Amino acid sequence: MKIVVIGASGTIGKVVCDNLSVRHEVVKASRSSGDIEVDISSLASIKNMYNLVKNIDAIVCCAGVAHFGPLDEMTQEKFYVGIQQKMMGQVNLVLEGQHYLNTNGSFTLTTGILADEPVYKTINSSLVNGGLNSFTFAVSQELKGGLRINAIAPGLVEHSVEKLAGSFPGYYPVSMDKVAAGYQKSVEGIMTGRVLKIY
Amino acid sequence: MKIVVIGASGTIGKVVCDNLSVRHEVVKASRSSGDIEVDISSLASIKNMYNLVKNIDAIVCCAGVAHFGPLDEMTQEKFYVGIQQKMMGQVNLVLEGQHYLNTNGSFTLTTGILADEPVYKTINSSLVNGGLNSFTFAVSQELKGGLRINAIAPGLVEHSVEKLAGSFPGYYPVSMDKVAAGYQKSVEGIMTGRVLKIY
Repeated sequence: MKIVVIGASGTIGKVVCDNLSVRHEVVKASRSSGDIEVDISSLASIKNMYNLVKNIDAIVCCAGVAHFGPLDEMTQEKFYVGIQQKMMGQVNLVLEGQHYLNTNGSFTLTTGILADEPVYKTINSSLVNGGLNSFTFAVSQELKGGLRINAIAPGLVEHSVEKLAGSFPGYYPVSMDKVAAGYQKSVEGIMTGRVLKIY
Repeated sequence: MKIVVIGASGTIGKVVCDNLSVRHEVVKASRSSGDIEVDISSLASIKNMYNLVKNIDAIVCCAGVAHFGPLDEMTQEKFYVGIQQKMMGQVNLVLEGQHYLNTNGSFTLTTGILADEPVYKTINSSLVNGGLNSFTFAVSQELKGGLRINAIAPGLVEHSVEKLAGSFPGYYPVSMDKVAAGYQKSVEGIMTGRVLKIY
């Protein structure tokens, strides 16, 4: 398969590329490196990517940030960070991509444990992840041409422990291999409309 | 209690007002009628409402629309209809309201069955409802001053059957009394962070 991995240089993106590239042609996409540059917060950038990369079987998105901050300091503007980036970035990958992907292609999005088990300062991520989880199932019912879609919801991953463990007390780290396997399961399997909780 | 019901003239808002006004002071808010005018898609309008209405114990929001349309015709612009109105409208009611509500006050938002059981053309509603469901729980963990928050997720309600039943095959109608009771449960009880599925 020809697979575009977006956020290829990130913590999760790297291991997903390592896993998939053993068996597939992987096109690495990032904001400022890789085989192709794409900023998913920009619809124009997404359209540009689909115009440049032909014959895509699978889109895997491991990119997308949200605002980290406490409720009592949260504003509409801060809330739109996650909406424009992680949420609408991935929504737009699907809205545009449905017209480009090969028959029987697939989308694999990234949400996360914060939809169900938020920690302090993660209201924005929680909303974004919860929205994308419901979106994934709704979209799966309407996709044509054999297209599939799933979301991977990782917990705290091993490679982020040093940076993030202080904010996630008791969140047992998930091995990078297990996370990468989740993406593989979505891309290479036949399931659709599922949220795979990797935690 | 002094309760502001937003969307008071709507299908659900009307029965919620009828239920709550038996025991409480209800301030009816709508876009163009009622005791006070508010358009939740506008942050300025929300701020204006909080400046005008004093001594609020509970906010109940039954307002908020989303785009109805098939996936293959969906665009970023159509997606932002539900995000700006039903999603960010209710998020902003909480972000602003946390600084205005009385101690031990509460927010009761409206999501819906489409987060879990979407029908054709409801991708936008599905994302919006799913996001707000996760938001509700995340926010409940950070609210101060004894403030509570819950979301009511109604199914197809009786008074919408004539208009909507064709789009919701097999969705068994929920009585208006049962829906109103859900809002009462959130406002008058002690629960917080819950999504009450009324279907």
